[in-house]
This record gives sequence, C-alpha cells and structure tokens, in this order.
Amino acid sequence: MSNTAGKVIKCKAAVAWEAGKPLVIEEVEVAPPQKHEVRLKILFTALCHTDVYFWEAKGQNPLFPRIFGHEAGGIVESVGEGVTELQPGDHVLPVFTGECKECAHCKSEESNMCDLLRINTDRGTMLNDGQTRFSKDGKPIYHFVGTSTFSEYTVSHVGSVAKINPAAPLDKVCVLSCGICTGFGATVNVAKPKKGSSVAIFGLGAVGLAAAEGARVSRASRIIGVDLNSNRFEEAKKFGVSEFVNPKDHNKPVQEVIAEMTNGGVDRSVECTGSIQAMISAFECVHDGWGVAVLVGVPSKDDAFKTHPMNFLNERTLKGTFYGNYKPRSDLPGVVEKYMNKEMELDKFITHSVPFSEINKAFEYMLAGEGIRCIVRMEH
Amino acid sequence: MSNTAGKVIKCKAAVAWEAGKPLVIEEVEVAPPQKHEVRLKILFTALCHTDVYFWEAKGQNPLFPRIFGHEAGGIVESVGEGVTELQPGDHVLPVFTGECKECAHCKSEESNMCDLLRINTDRGTMLNDGQTRFSKDGKPIYHFVGTSTFSEYTVSHVGSVAKINPAAPLDKVCVLSCGICTGFGATVNVAKPKKGSSVAIFGLGAVGLAAAEGARVSRASRIIGVDLNSNRFEEAKKFGVSEFVNPKDHNKPVQEVIAEMTNGGVDRSVECTGSIQAMISAFECVHDGWGVAVLVGVPSKDDAFKTHPMNFLNERTLKGTFYGNYKPRSDLPGVVEKYMNKEMELDKFITHSVPFSEINKAFEYMLAGEGIRCIVRMEH
Repeated sequence: MSNTAGKVIKCKAAVAWEAGKPLVIEEVEVAPPQKHEVRLKILFTALCHTDVYFWEAKGQNPLFPRIFGHEAGGIVESVGEGVTELQPGDHVLPVFTGECKECAHCKSEESNMCDLLRINTDRGTMLNDGQTRFSKDGKPIYHFVGTSTFSEYTVSHVGSVAKINPAAPLDKVCVLSCGICTGFGATVNVAKPKKGSSVAIFGLGAVGLAAAEGARVSRASRIIGVDLNSNRFEEAKKFGVSEFVNPKDHNKPVQEVIAEMTNGGVDRSVECTGSIQAMISAFECVHDGWGVAVLVGVPSKDDAFKTHPMNFLNERTLKGTFYGNYKPRSDLPGVVEKYMNKEMELDKFITHSVPFSEINKAFEYMLAGEGIRCIVRMEH
Repeated sequence: MSNTAGKVIKCKAAVAWEAGKPLVIEEVEVAPPQKHEVRLKILFTALCHTDVYFWEAKGQNPLFPRIFGHEAGGIVESVGEGVTELQPGDHVLPVFTGECKECAHCKSEESNMCDLLRINTDRGTMLNDGQTRFSKDGKPIYHFVGTSTFSEYTVSHVGSVAKINPAAPLDKVCVLSCGICTGFGATVNVAKPKKGSSVAIFGLGAVGLAAAEGARVSRASRIIGVDLNSNRFEEAKKFGVSEFVNPKDHNKPVQEVIAEMTNGGVDRSVECTGSIQAMISAFECVHDGWGVAVLVGVPSKDDAFKTHPMNFLNERTLKGTFYGNYKPRSDLPGVVEKYMNKEMELDKFITHSVPFSEINKAFEYMLAGEGIRCIVRMEH
C-alpha cells in the first residue's frame, strides 16, 4: 500500500450534500495524514442511529457537505508525522471518541472522556490545522466525529484509532466501534451485575440489546426488557432477555410494575433510550440498599431528571456512562479478544449487509426500524 | 449484675412528656428483656440532632411520653431468650438501626438497610410484643428507634446492639452509634476518595466533620468545607478541612465556585445538610469523568432532586448512604478498633460533657449551635 503514502488518494465516498437527502457516491480526494494522523482504508462500516441523527440535522446546526460513518473496521494505509503506535497494514477500528493518553481523563482509571479527543459532533475538520482532508473539485467536505467511515479511505487522529488483532473478522468486529461497546460496557463496566442478579434494560435497540448481552455474559438470572414496541421482544430473546414489559400495557408507572415483579426492584438497570421518563423509571425501579441504575441514552437539551432524594438516601446509585466506559485505544483490543474467545457474541447483532453502492438501503432499514445492524461492504 | 436478671429494674430516666418541653428525670420501671432482647446499663450517651428533631415533633406524629437517646455506650445487664451472641458484662453500642443477619439486606454485601430492624422513628414499642419495656406508675413510656438511651437502663433488640472491645473508652466511642459513623462511613465506605484527591463537604456539623475526618484519614489533599455559617470554619480545620466556601459570599451557584477552584470539579463530594439545594450543588460540583457525590443529609418530604441528565451522562455518580453503609453488628467493632489504633480521631468531636441530671443543657447547646457533641454521663 506504500505507493499511495504521502499522496492524495482518489476514491469513492458517500457524501451527504444536504440534511435528510440520500447520500451520493462521489469520487473524492483524500489528503495524506498530517501530524498525529493516520489514513485508513475502510473495509466495512455499519450505520448507527447517531449518523442518521446528524444526517437528519433536525436539532443541530447543519454542517454539509459531510461524510458520515463511525462504526467501521479498516487497515492503516499510511501514517503522518509523529505516529509511532500504528503502521501501514495494522488492522484497526476508528472510534468517534479518542484517547490522547496525556490528559487528566486519560490518566484517570475511571474516565474515558479525553479532553483532547472527546466526541465533538459540531467539528467537521481535523484538529491539527482546522482543515478537512476530504475534498471534491477543490471544495472541502466535512468530517464527522473524527471518523467519516462512509468512504473507501478516511483520515483520523491516531488517538481515535484502536489497533486490534489482525485475525479478527472486520465485518463483525466493526460494530464494536460504537453501539455494541456502549451497551455492553454499560453493563459489564458500570452496572456490574453479579451472577444470579436481576437486570432491567430500557430500550431494546442495538445499544439495549448489547446491554442485555452484557447481562447475559455476566450470568444475570433475570433480564427484563422494557420497550414501547412489543415487536422487539422476540428478537431480544436471542440476547438473553427473559421477561418483557411494555409500559403501554400497564396503567401504573413501569417502575412499580418492575418492583412488583422482583420483590422490591431489580439489582441493576440500564437505560438505553434517552427518554427522560425512561431514565427516571430506570432509576426508581432498582432495589433499595444495593440497586444501581446506569444511564446510557442521550437526553434532549431541555430535559430535567427529577426524583425524590429519599430514593438516593435508601442506598440507590445512579451513574451515567459514555461509550461503556471503554478507553478506545487501551480497551478495545481486549473487547475484540472477548469476541474471538467466544466470551461475547456479535454475529447476532448483524441482521443486514449491503454493498457500498447501496448504502442508502442501510438508512432505509434503520428508519423503518428493521433489524439491528446493517454492514456496508466497501468491496474495494 | 446478675441479681437483677429477670426482674424489673427501677432506675432514673429522662422522660420527654411533651413535644419541645424540657426532659424530666423520673424514676421509671424497666421490664426484663424478652425473646431476642437485651437489657443494657447505659454509661454514656450523647445527644444527636435526630433526638432533638423528634422531641420537637414539628413534622411528625407526636408520640409521648417517650425516652429519647440513641448515641450511647453501655454494658449488657441481662439477656432474653434466644440471645446467644451477647452475655452480661459485654461492652456494647446500641444502634438506631439494626442487623438481623437473616434478611436480603443483611445477606447482601452492599446494603445495611435490614428489613426487620431498619430505623423506624414512628414505632415506640418493642417488635416482639408491640409493648413498651418502660413504664411509670403502670403507664407505658414509649421507646425511640429501639435504643432509648436517656435512661440508666434500657432494652433493645439484640440485632440493634454491637459488641465492642471492652478496652475501648465508652465515653468516647459512644459517639460512633450514630453521627460520626454516618459521616465517616459516607466518605470511606461510599465516596472512597483516593489519596491526593479533592473532596467537598457540604455542612460542617457533626456528620459533616466526620465526613471530613474520613477524607483526612483517606489522605485527600484538598478538603473543601461548605457551610452557610462561617463561624464553623475555624473548628473545621481540626478535621482536616483546608478551604472554605460560604455560598452567601458568592453571587453564583456554589457548584460553579467549586468548579473554578478545582479545575472542573472535585473528585468527591459528601452532602451532610439535607437541604435539597445543597444536594443538587454537591452533585453538580463533582468532576465529569470520575466524580462521585454522596448524599447523607435527610431531605424534606416534598423535596425534588432535579438536575440535567447530561450531568450523569458525563460520567458522574450519585449515591445515597444510610449510617455510612456500616452494618451495625458486623462493622462497628472494627470502627472501634480504628479508633483504638489511632487510625481515626474521636476526642475532637466531644466538646461538652454534663451529668445526667443536667441533660437539658445538652439540648440547649445543640439548639444554640454550640460545639459538636455533648456527652451525658449517667454516673450510676
């Protein structure tokens, strides 16, 4: 691959020209990586809700044209100045939030919210020079969360790229770049249910199912799935969900329903919807004395979390998490090994697959609520 | 002491005949302990805010006449049927919340909120038969939180009595029965600050100062005391408090003041006032990524804890605690040993001492906000 190092690469990318309009496969130019950057050849990318959310751009400042995509697997094509940890040919997962290894967060054992490379959905350029590495006919195309994986080649900061076992199948482990680690880590790293315990999962989308997978792997004895869409219950059984509650089926708050099912509350809960009411329910449904509720879903700007403080005084814990508390570079290689060692399952998350030329189908599946993850095959 | 076993004991007790009226030292009758009960000779008792709160009875159903008191040290006089863990002569601390060792909470490593013996401020009788063990002229006098230590002799459930090292000075370790363990445990068992970390303590009364003592013992490098009463700051220095913030001195929320002082927030905070605004500030003043806030102070019935959920999503944790998460029977002996081994200080909490005949002075000190703990010497 070294014959392209230092040169502009022309390749195909799926460009979002306007909010909510189908992506267009274009030939774009990808500049060489600068200081502390790497250029990646993307082999597989998946579509995540966050891509759709910012593509729709209903709540944010629109930033177009832009190349979305942040769940992906690829191979390092070339590296910029000062990059010593990666070299061409390394198998990697780009991640939407980085790890500089220098800031207080990176140095803390407890945080993964890197000061330098923490997710920034507003920024469409590279940190190094505030410019884009993508262009078409000399006009810049913006980046997305430092990954922009809907392109045959992309440029990322080295701190946003995890080097993984080259034996791992990239068409499977690519989903670890975002949603699956977010949910799985929320359970295993933050909620930490003990063997035999009860866990409630709010929201049975990809993140919630990954949280359930974390509970299954932790050998929870009861995994209670909560969702407003009962159609999701059958699929969720594959992820260890053993009981289901649709709040619409009850004329009392779902936290009361769960408390009655579990003799006072579940041991752990994980909230994966972002609905403020679900957050409150997820907190209030845990048992006093030892219950831990973990918030994963991203709330709206104007939401207020509200509860009676005695719910805390009775020894409940409420924690939030971001990307399952994983530090991308330090921890992702280990998660990939978990998959390789069959300590967690990934294949069941992948319900669809399309060639790059049909990437808009992945958007259609997601908007229709069909399946969990759709893999886009770059097929260079 | 065995010559009194099985018999009614006549002794002096400080009886609260009416809400808010000075206690009256009376000769009362103390019945023998029944099944799973023990009768204790109280040697020292201290006064805690909770006694005053229920004696004033402004917010609760009044239950009078009643014998208050729940921070105390004494010696077992006799034991009832089925009591095998204690015997006459044992040195003990009665505790306002018990540990049956049989329920789900007692069996959980994480909880101390015993189903059977959890604090119950409404109950004025013994669990065994719903009767009182105290009477005067044949009329019952009610118990308080299963301890009623403002009496030369009292009867408690065996699950509410911790057996301690007989070498420990009861006039000092008696304060571990409530406030000091509540604050100290909130820090060392729940907030768990690391060496070198920053800790904010909201409220510099006995519980808050004990929380500060916990931070000092944990070798926190910065202990920031927050109180509306600046007169408390000088005394607080003895407890390791190194910086002070009086919210009245600032025209912005105290959480912002603390964030500015600490480059984004403290590592840990402990809320010991019960004010809902202090609770919210204590949560919002911890650093994102790793901050943990612990609620200790008991809120009002109608309070609502309210914050933006992103404060959780940014990896903050909010936990409540009760009695510092100590299991009274299992853990108190170890806390007493900590004092004996000079791993924690207690003497500095004891600012006053009065003979039993002057117990109302202890109430006066507390109502005037004078000192921290006043020991009442029973002087049999």
